This record gives sequence, C-alpha cells and structure tokens, in this order.
Amino acid sequence: MKKLINDPADVVKEALQGVAAAHPDRLRVMTDPNVIVRADAPVQGKVGLVSGGGSGHEPMHGGFVGMGMLDAACPGEVFTSPTPDQMLAATKAVNGGAGVLHIVKNYTGDVLNFEMAADLAGEEKIEVEAVVIDDDVAVTDSLYTAGRRGVGTTVLAEKICGAAAEQRRPLAEVAELCRKVNAGGRSMGMALTSCIVPAAGKPTFELGAAEMEIGIGIHGEPGRERRQIAPAREIVEMLAAPIVDDLPFRPGDRVLAFVNSMGGTPLIELYVVYNELHRFLAGRGIEIARNLIGPYITSLEMQGCSITLLKLDDELTALWDAPVNTPGMRWGA
Amino acid sequence: MKKLINDPADVVKEALQGVAAAHPDRLRVMTDPNVIVRADAPVQGKVGLVSGGGSGHEPMHGGFVGMGMLDAACPGEVFTSPTPDQMLAATKAVNGGAGVLHIVKNYTGDVLNFEMAADLAGEEKIEVEAVVIDDDVAVTDSLYTAGRRGVGTTVLAEKICGAAAEQRRPLAEVAELCRKVNAGGRSMGMALTSCIVPAAGKPTFELGAAEMEIGIGIHGEPGRERRQIAPAREIVEMLAAPIVDDLPFRPGDRVLAFVNSMGGTPLIELYVVYNELHRFLAGRGIEIARNLIGPYITSLEMQGCSITLLKLDDELTALWDAPVNTPGMRWGA
Repeated sequence: MKKLINDPADVVKEALQGVAAAHPDRLRVMTDPNVIVRADAPVQGKVGLVSGGGSGHEPMHGGFVGMGMLDAACPGEVFTSPTPDQMLAATKAVNGGAGVLHIVKNYTGDVLNFEMAADLAGEEKIEVEAVVIDDDVAVTDSLYTAGRRGVGTTVLAEKICGAAAEQRRPLAEVAELCRKVNAGGRSMGMALTSCIVPAAGKPTFELGAAEMEIGIGIHGEPGRERRQIAPAREIVEMLAAPIVDDLPFRPGDRVLAFVNSMGGTPLIELYVVYNELHRFLAGRGIEIARNLIGPYITSLEMQGCSITLLKLDDELTALWDAPVNTPGMRWGA
Repeated sequence: MKKLINDPADVVKEALQGVAAAHPDRLRVMTDPNVIVRADAPVQGKVGLVSGGGSGHEPMHGGFVGMGMLDAACPGEVFTSPTPDQMLAATKAVNGGAGVLHIVKNYTGDVLNFEMAADLAGEEKIEVEAVVIDDDVAVTDSLYTAGRRGVGTTVLAEKICGAAAEQRRPLAEVAELCRKVNAGGRSMGMALTSCIVPAAGKPTFELGAAEMEIGIGIHGEPGRERRQIAPAREIVEMLAAPIVDDLPFRPGDRVLAFVNSMGGTPLIELYVVYNELHRFLAGRGIEIARNLIGPYITSLEMQGCSITLLKLDDELTALWDAPVNTPGMRWGA
C-alpha cells in the first residue's frame, strides 16, 4: 500500500489535526468525539447544518464547514459511519436556538445513527429535522444501503441549504429546500481503479487492466456492470443517460452539472468529461447554467468520476451563487 | 492505460473545449494557436500576465486565468513546451498598453520559446519582461532543464503578481515582485507512482511496489534518490529539511506553506502531510501564516506530493489575500 500516511490506524486522527492546524480561521476540531465545527458556532438565530459520514471522501464533509455551508461535520473512521455521540455533540455545538438540520447520505449506518442522535437531541429540547439524500441512480438496495445511495447531490444540498440558513430561513423551510434539492438531483459514478482502505491495506475490489465499473458506489460498492474500458464519450453517455432519464430531465431544463473526481483522476480528464457532458446535454436540449468540476466527494485515491445533475430554478441558482467561505468551496466572501 | 479520455491525440484539444464550455464568464479559449485568455482581456492600463507550459499540470496554468491572477495561459501538448506563436498570440491578446510579464517555469524549451516570443512582441512594440521561476531544490541540471526546475512557487507568483497587476503597478515593479517571490520560494516533490502520458500509453518510469522517488520533477524526471516507502512524517522531513536549509528559512520567519497533490493523491493524505509539515516547521521556529492545500500543479495522475514554502512579508501577505476569481483559485470576489 502506497500512501502518504503514518500508522494506518491514525489516518483520520492525523488528517483532522492537519485540518485543525490549517484552518483555525474558519473551523475548530473537537475531539472525543471528533467533530469539525464552524469557528463561530453556534450562530445565534441561524439554523445549524450538520452532516457527516465516513472519512475518505474529502473535502466532503469537513471541508465544507464554514460560512454559507455546514456548521459542523462528523467524520467517522474511513468508510465507517460516525457514531450517534459525534452527531449529538455536533448538534449541540451548532444549535443557535433556531434548530438543527441533519443532512444525511443514505447509508444504513449513517441513517440509523443520525436518527438516534436526533432522538437524543430532542430529549435536550433541540429541534432537529433530518433529510436523507438518495440521488444515486445506479442501483437500489446495495451493499450498505436500503434504497438508493446518497452521493454527489449531498455536496450541492449542503451549499444551497447553507446559503438559505445564512438568510435566517426557519428550520422547516431549510429542510423543505433540502428535500427539493434531493428531489431534483441525480448522480452516477464509475471507477477505473479501486481504492485501498488504509486499515485493509489492499484494494477493495479487483478490476482487470482494461476493465471499469459503471455505477460504482463511493466505498467501492458494486455498480451496474463491469465492462471494458471505453472512450470518455461513451462513458459519459453511460452515466448521463440514466441520470437524465431517471428524473427525467427535459428539454429546456436548466441544470447545475457537477463533474466529480473520485480522488485519483486529475483535472485534465474531468474537463474532457465535462466537454462530453456539455455536448450530450446540448443534444437533449438541456442547458448547463452552473457547474462544479473537481474532487469534491472522493473515494480515497480511486480513479474515476461521477456526474451529478441538479435541476435549477431561480431560487436554487441564487442560493448556489451566494457567498461561501469553507476550505473546500469558497467564493464571493 | 486507463484514463477518461477519447483519442490520446485529442486530450489537450478536448480538455480545452471543456474549459471553454465551463467558464465563459471568466475566460475564452482561442485556437490556432491555443491560448486561454481572460474574458475581458486586454484590460486597459493593466500589466498583462502570461504564463504557459506543457499540459498535464492542471489547474496550472489555464485554471489560473481570471481577475487577480493570469491574463492568459499557453497550453502546450502534454508535458511539451508551448510554441512561440502561442506565447506571442497571448502577449498580443492581453496587452492593455502597460506591457506584459511572462512568468516562465525553468524548463529549457519554455525559456527559449518565451524568449523568442518576447523578441517578436518587441518587434510589435509591446514591452515585455520575463521572470524565470527556478524554485525546485531537488536537483540542478536535470533532464529538461539547465539549472533548477520551476515548480510550485510558480502558482504563488502568479497569484501574487496578479494581485499587484490589478493594483495597476507598473511592469518593472510587477516583474521585480515576481523575482522577489522566486527568491523567497523553495519547493521539492516526491512520487509514489508514475504518471502515464496519454500519447505514450505507458508509465514514464517504473517504481517498485514499495518504492518512492524523492525529488521527482513534475514530468517524472528523476529526483535525488529512490528509496523504500516511508511514513509521512519521514517523507515530510525529506522534503522540508532541504527546502528550509536551502534558502535558508530561519526561526521567526513567516511562510506560506503549500502542500500540493501531484494529481492522484487525495486530500485526506495531503492533510496528514500538512499536519507533519506544521509540526516540522514549528520545531524550527517557522510560523505558517498562510497555506494552500490541494492539487494545483499536477503531473497527470501521479500519486505523490510537493511542498513549497514562500517567505512572507506584509506586502506578499496582502497580495496573497487580495481577491481572485479564476476557475482554479477563487476568493473574496
């Protein structure tokens, strides 16, 4: 296993120490349990946004803590759900009196633990709503998940709901907005290579030298099919056609197109993919009004990409454009 | 070769089409010859900043075109110097009457071609200054280079000089500032894996399953030594000690610490590296006043990292903090 780490058992702890050392202006890192919290939390009168999940997907979620996005993130061990006590500590740390929204990717462990944390927070009189993101069209009921997995739309929901919370919208409204983003977002990913979980020390799955996995999950869960490597043009079609057909996205729709690296795929390839996606959507009469291109929801060093499309309206577009200041996403502020 | 591309011969062309499709608000892509130009170029009365080099290092340089950074970038084929006619076209496109600064990484082909372009621009009465960045402490006189290679400090110089140009500082002053950044910046990189140049279709070099290359160049040029993989703590020492000793950086110095992914190394590992670098520098009495962590000067999908330290003073810090709005670096505007 070749990684820039020390003891595999310490990866998450040491990465969090690095985050704490790098970004004291925007966030602080609580330990025991591990929570990344916005530096000025709790923000009085603002809905607090909390997300979390296994580590290994950076910058999601910890890199999205800051003004205009999350108030706290709960990092689990690599590809492992965070615990209810992390989520409860996060919820308490960000409660500014307006309640707390849990944005939860649909993995069974995450969902159960966030439910338990919400119950515990309720006992402490903190109002909590939870929205489960389940945007991955590749498969239903996979290795770790009942129903569809939650992937790229989570990043977009965190940005958009974060902007709404900054406007001091009430909890019910921010939660409803989050459900709207989830309803209008669809994703699918693919892998050229497996990742290696540090504690495992070997590839999560084996792919032949000329094979790829279409519909991969962000933990290396099986996708729709394993097939021979193909040109980017065909790969984009394999990902984008099911996405477009699923919602469905229709001619005249305006979308946010998010082309994401799984971690090991560099930007030059993402732009080749974006070029193909742009063509593909133009052919369907769908306009890309906003885009996001880069590594935002990764699977350690996995090579591959995912595509997320989010149907935009004026409200979502304005919230997307609103200022944000986090280590992983920053503009206008 | 597993990559998200179509025909290997078309990678640069198609990636540029993707860039053009993605960022029409900030830049436009000229073809024949290929130049990425700021959308509002030429900006009257502002020094124009031009850089360029082989493709495969994205987001450098094309991703740094926009307000507060470069006015144009000349992308060559993968790991291949751009041509003088690209550089001349870029220079003409961004000349707003205040002259043009060429920021040149020290690779023999880049230097020669930028010199030729400057001569040609001079014949057209455009005032040009050139600053060569040569910050890599790993080796002197390597495969493509007489003297030290130009690497990570280039990114910082483009940001800082871009801010100075926005202030309408005159050409001589922006060039002097660029020389100051180069004088105060030092870098060194390492690789865990080789990259694959699309046209070659096979790894640039071979590394054993437990080997790494310390002092690697951004095109896979040999470094100082090949050795067994080691913990991140030791790798950081191998990179940071030569950097600190070279300038030298001294106790009490304030620095910008730039931890860069070579393309295939994900963010979680960069934060482990940053954590070690932070400790290492604290032990030397050096304060990290600013940081940059992510993939900014890549070598296709190579796994590994580089460290750049830039000695800061109040002027450089203020210019670093100034607003920037490019696809690859964006804040405060």
